Amino acid sequence: MNYHVDNIKNIELFFKSLRNDICNSFENIENSNPNNKNKPHKTFNFKRKKWKRKADKGFASGGGGVISIMKGKVFEKVGVNISSVQGRFSTEMRKKIPGANKTGKFYATGISLVAHMHSPFIPAAHMNLRFIHTTKSWFGGGIDLTPAIGNAKIIKKHFHSDLKQMCDYHNPSYYKRFKEWCDNYFYLPHREEARGMGGIFFDNIDKDLDKNFLFIQDVGKVFLQIFPEIIKKNMHKRWTNEQKEKQLIKRGRYVEFNLLYDRGTAFGLQTGGNIEAIFMSLPPNVSWL
Amino acid sequence: MNYHVDNIKNIELFFKSLRNDICNSFENIENSNPNNKNKPHKTFNFKRKKWKRKADKGFASGGGGVISIMKGKVFEKVGVNISSVQGRFSTEMRKKIPGANKTGKFYATGISLVAHMHSPFIPAAHMNLRFIHTTKSWFGGGIDLTPAIGNAKIIKKHFHSDLKQMCDYHNPSYYKRFKEWCDNYFYLPHREEARGMGGIFFDNIDKDLDKNFLFIQDVGKVFLQIFPEIIKKNMHKRWTNEQKEKQLIKRGRYVEFNLLYDRGTAFGLQTGGNIEAIFMSLPPNVSWL
Repeated sequence: MNYHVDNIKNIELFFKSLRNDICNSFENIENSNPNNKNKPHKTFNFKRKKWKRKADKGFASGGGGVISIMKGKVFEKVGVNISSVQGRFSTEMRKKIPGANKTGKFYATGISLVAHMHSPFIPAAHMNLRFIHTTKSWFGGGIDLTPAIGNAKIIKKHFHSDLKQMCDYHNPSYYKRFKEWCDNYFYLPHREEARGMGGIFFDNIDKDLDKNFLFIQDVGKVFLQIFPEIIKKNMHKRWTNEQKEKQLIKRGRYVEFNLLYDRGTAFGLQTGGNIEAIFMSLPPNVSWL
Repeated sequence: MNYHVDNIKNIELFFKSLRNDICNSFENIENSNPNNKNKPHKTFNFKRKKWKRKADKGFASGGGGVISIMKGKVFEKVGVNISSVQGRFSTEMRKKIPGANKTGKFYATGISLVAHMHSPFIPAAHMNLRFIHTTKSWFGGGIDLTPAIGNAKIIKKHFHSDLKQMCDYHNPSYYKRFKEWCDNYFYLPHREEARGMGGIFFDNIDKDLDKNFLFIQDVGKVFLQIFPEIIKKNMHKRWTNEQKEKQLIKRGRYVEFNLLYDRGTAFGLQTGGNIEAIFMSLPPNVSWL
């Protein structure tokens, strides 16, 4: 099944409106934080930056995207990217992407979020939703959290239970499958370590795109419900230098994963994506021992 | 031409003695630094750590190595690794490594050094020398520097002139070839940026291994002459927070290069090397914007 233009416009609109809702929610957290003692009271906001992708042969436009970045007192760095790109895959990419082996034509739109928090008590968050169209069409995405220190049992329990509830509403088989997919994907073989506490991860899940799109919307909405709650519950705890140092070391694993294994990063680099948008995920401060 | 056991022992001995000379030189710099105002006077030393590689099928030992790390007031983090490993390459590696396509048997020994300095006025340094033996035998290696801020013109001029003089002594064609090789190798295509100010880089340079070994020894010795001089000339300059921040950002490029492109890192990860030794090169503190 392929989506016609009206559907694709709806997907783009949903990603844009989700981006706006997330940015509003995060700005509210930042600006209601009593730790922000700057006088005159400083308001933290997302800064937006548009980028354009060079058109491939036979296309009037290569598309582009908008990067939104905020650096505050709660969010050490949070980035939310939306993008819609189109063109032709390279010969090498055509072999890897379903439905691209003949002409290599593709269209892809998505939203991608990574939040690195000042507090080591709040896990780093990653959320990504995407729609890809070649001669085939499919959705993919996921949500996962990366805690820095071992206090995260309660967070993990609530997080997975909320994800399960949302998944179960759509299909009782989703949660188990997508949780395993997430655990397998966010894994660092060279360290024999999981990147974080898991979550859900999925790609090309079902033939019924309308049904998938409803699921995709709920994944976005559940993220917007879960993560701000985790932040608000943990943002006022004081941390030690040792706990902060642990977080910086844990972020090193995050960098290792993204540069060595992440398919999104590789996809971006291989399709001439915007470097700033691709590396938005990299933490603001990192340490290696 | 292949080397017999006596020659290989000599190579290992040279790498070990070079490691000792470098560590002594760097410890002397650290402990004669008047900025070290700790009372009672704290002495900085390299900490050593041995590691063993798991033996591959048909080998009594997989070999191993020794990591030497120092964190001081001049050297933010400097690591010097020596290793000698043996075994059988994986099927995938056999296609890439000269002379390994039949049995996959290999022996490799080397020294590898990366220094990240507190002062943004002192470039990060990288030096690597290696000998690899399959059904063929060859040397490879290089030296290169990565300055953080744009003050490095004088350093660059002296550095390249010293390298040229040393290379010319062995072969008038070396410097030009190995400088270009270095510029091509230490390049980040996704940023269209050089990693640093270049240096020399070479692999499998000549059939005459005895002659190569003399060159390899001189590369090690010239590093031991050049880098401490650069440090001593620049270690007392005061830097600003902005200059330090620039250095941390520049280090991000270093991480990107090592995880996305470096063949040494890939070789280590694919041959079951020691993770701590492979990632010794990663900077202690890094920032991404």
